[in-house]
Amino acid sequence: MKDKINIAVLGLGTVGTGVVNLLKDNAVELSRRSGHDICITHVGTRRRRDDIDPTIKQSDDLMSIAADDDVDIVIEVIGGKSVAKDVIIHAIEHKKHVVTANKALLAEHGNEIFGLAEEHGVQVRYEAAVAGGIPIIKIIREALAANKVDWVAGIINGTGNFILTEMQQKNRRFGDVLKEAQALGYAEADPTFDVEGIDAAHKLSLLASIAFGIPLQFNKVYCEGITKINLQDVVYAKELGYTIKHLGFAFRREHGFELRVHPTLIPNSTLLANVNGVKNAVMVDAHPLGQSLYYGDGAGAGATASAVMADVMDLIYVINANTPSDVPHLAFVPEELSDTRILSSDEMTCGYYLRLTVKDELGVLADTTRILSENGINIDAIMQRDAHKSGLVPVIILTLPVLESQMNKAIKEIETLGAVTEPVVRIRLESLE
Amino acid sequence: MKDKINIAVLGLGTVGTGVVNLLKDNAVELSRRSGHDICITHVGTRRRRDDIDPTIKQSDDLMSIAADDDVDIVIEVIGGKSVAKDVIIHAIEHKKHVVTANKALLAEHGNEIFGLAEEHGVQVRYEAAVAGGIPIIKIIREALAANKVDWVAGIINGTGNFILTEMQQKNRRFGDVLKEAQALGYAEADPTFDVEGIDAAHKLSLLASIAFGIPLQFNKVYCEGITKINLQDVVYAKELGYTIKHLGFAFRREHGFELRVHPTLIPNSTLLANVNGVKNAVMVDAHPLGQSLYYGDGAGAGATASAVMADVMDLIYVINANTPSDVPHLAFVPEELSDTRILSSDEMTCGYYLRLTVKDELGVLADTTRILSENGINIDAIMQRDAHKSGLVPVIILTLPVLESQMNKAIKEIETLGAVTEPVVRIRLESLE
Repeated sequence: MKDKINIAVLGLGTVGTGVVNLLKDNAVELSRRSGHDICITHVGTRRRRDDIDPTIKQSDDLMSIAADDDVDIVIEVIGGKSVAKDVIIHAIEHKKHVVTANKALLAEHGNEIFGLAEEHGVQVRYEAAVAGGIPIIKIIREALAANKVDWVAGIINGTGNFILTEMQQKNRRFGDVLKEAQALGYAEADPTFDVEGIDAAHKLSLLASIAFGIPLQFNKVYCEGITKINLQDVVYAKELGYTIKHLGFAFRREHGFELRVHPTLIPNSTLLANVNGVKNAVMVDAHPLGQSLYYGDGAGAGATASAVMADVMDLIYVINANTPSDVPHLAFVPEELSDTRILSSDEMTCGYYLRLTVKDELGVLADTTRILSENGINIDAIMQRDAHKSGLVPVIILTLPVLESQMNKAIKEIETLGAVTEPVVRIRLESLE
Repeated sequence: MKDKINIAVLGLGTVGTGVVNLLKDNAVELSRRSGHDICITHVGTRRRRDDIDPTIKQSDDLMSIAADDDVDIVIEVIGGKSVAKDVIIHAIEHKKHVVTANKALLAEHGNEIFGLAEEHGVQVRYEAAVAGGIPIIKIIREALAANKVDWVAGIINGTGNFILTEMQQKNRRFGDVLKEAQALGYAEADPTFDVEGIDAAHKLSLLASIAFGIPLQFNKVYCEGITKINLQDVVYAKELGYTIKHLGFAFRREHGFELRVHPTLIPNSTLLANVNGVKNAVMVDAHPLGQSLYYGDGAGAGATASAVMADVMDLIYVINANTPSDVPHLAFVPEELSDTRILSSDEMTCGYYLRLTVKDELGVLADTTRILSENGINIDAIMQRDAHKSGLVPVIILTLPVLESQMNKAIKEIETLGAVTEPVVRIRLESLE
């Protein structure tokens, strides 16, 4: 039994500083809970920091820290995919447990990294990689371990949710809100990762793996961002009782899994529709548990440090046990990961919100509904608005779930109608039932 | 390393049957996740059940099963406090790990049971004891282990929440809804435990212990049920932007902890106010995580079995490790549990909803506000309604947080006013900020 646990924090950005502060603020609570002294012995930083306890060794030689005999757990909060990967692999090869918040690295190289960790009998923990402070990794890997997961749906990018919330609640336009989000520090100067859905797709691929027991397959996640969401559609959706959220979905289907990230209409009455601002939330539908939802801060120094340190607390028990036996990295024992197919976008099934812009002519509605019907698409609601000054009329149609390939075909046909003057706007719709 | 884990299920009521079914339904998933064969070898039941796999031994001799050498984990889902306690203690003394859903037993005898388990180097797991399928025990004990918890607020009794939701959404009276809840099987024939708040108080005492690191102190929980909630107050609350929920609260205060269970006005805009029907939800405010919320089914065979089996999955790692080292029963190492005082109801602080019934006379409002002010109570809102046919007028007052002893004194003074014809109705109010 080791009384003192030594940790190295590599990277002193927002998250790294959050971890250092947490250990200072909650020292008493941490030792009351764990029965151990948890000490930061090393920090890896490019430039010396004077606000750090002088007994902590500071160095820019990350590889040496990762291999240091005194260190029990290496926390990687550098970010990025090159140095971070080298350092994690180095730590694993020196039989250190690793805690990381690096979703991009894990989504793209996790299979390799976890395999290496298993070879060396150590753990790579990554609670902070998905949904920040919401302990969704532990919940799906451990708390729901007796369930068969049917689907996961999550608001897993705070920036995107902030933008959509502002658009919805204050009738603001995408571009204006994005500028404010950048000013507030919620969005990066280059917001591509957040607003194009790549960050959410990284996280979703992790969630899907631990929910279904499949290898990480980031490159197979269908990914659509929020940059094309028009304020007009947010408003129409609201009138119809729906909220547009940027969601990540992982569905178990008869012939494979659907992994997708895209703007989605969901009913206002669902809890997910009421998750606003930078908050995150993940809903899980599983058998026999049914639906459950987990909500909290998806980013920020405090929330991320909370998740990182929860992993450290867990690893203390792993270190003190005389066996590396513990929850498998992807929740299922590695040899049981399945090669079930990830469905292509054509094979995905969901409801749709369609917005047509049509000339105010007799027969266009009849033609449209005929085309939908011929393609086996059931209409759930139609809303026709007054004509614009231009004489053009917006027609909104909500459909029941349909195979995407059928919807593609129907839309192509609708767009050939003479009265339809613009490309059909389509946004996916999920009832979350 | 043990490949086969043998479990005994004591009690074949709703929950026990749920566990048996889960193991049958999800056998493949369980072994893919755990890498182990999890087998029910014994069930304890008073009368033989023909629908159970004949290779499982059935017996009414619970004590023998609990001591059987073949059994690794004993699941107690009998309920009640006498037989269940004897059987758990017997299992512990025979060095079996125990999983139980028995909140009443743990709330009242948990300190003794956990102490005994620690002596014998085994674990008593109780995820199913609070909020059914919501893994709130694991979340607070493990996932939030690096936080200092400031408060916990939970809808932790589904029956009560069903009744209040119906009253709020359909303007129905308490008695009518209770009858329906009984018919639907949501409420017992004798609903005392649920509607008087005792069940919620049991659960709250468990939550408070693992949040703050204090021994179980069920007898110090202030407990008020929903039987006196008048439809009129539900309606007035709604008009003022609040929902009445039956909540359990555990607050960290400067001079001690507040543990209380009572009907509470909370703002409609909070997620907790939107948790409806038999659903449960628990909100936690912690440093540095901030606020997080956990939502799902608080009862029922499937949800409870999910929680029971999550404990079993965890115990597999404990069994395979060569050390009993694991998360402490009450989240803090036993010698670190603190004897910080539980505040008396007089010392509690919260906002209030007051309803006065007054004669339509000049000056009564002035007198009332003067009394509140003299007692240091700040008014947040006042609403006066039209006079009833009787000539009596309802006056609703919302106050900012105030010490309960001050509120008691103020109400006593208000009730002496000649124009105040009935006892003042008071319901606590929390902003959850």
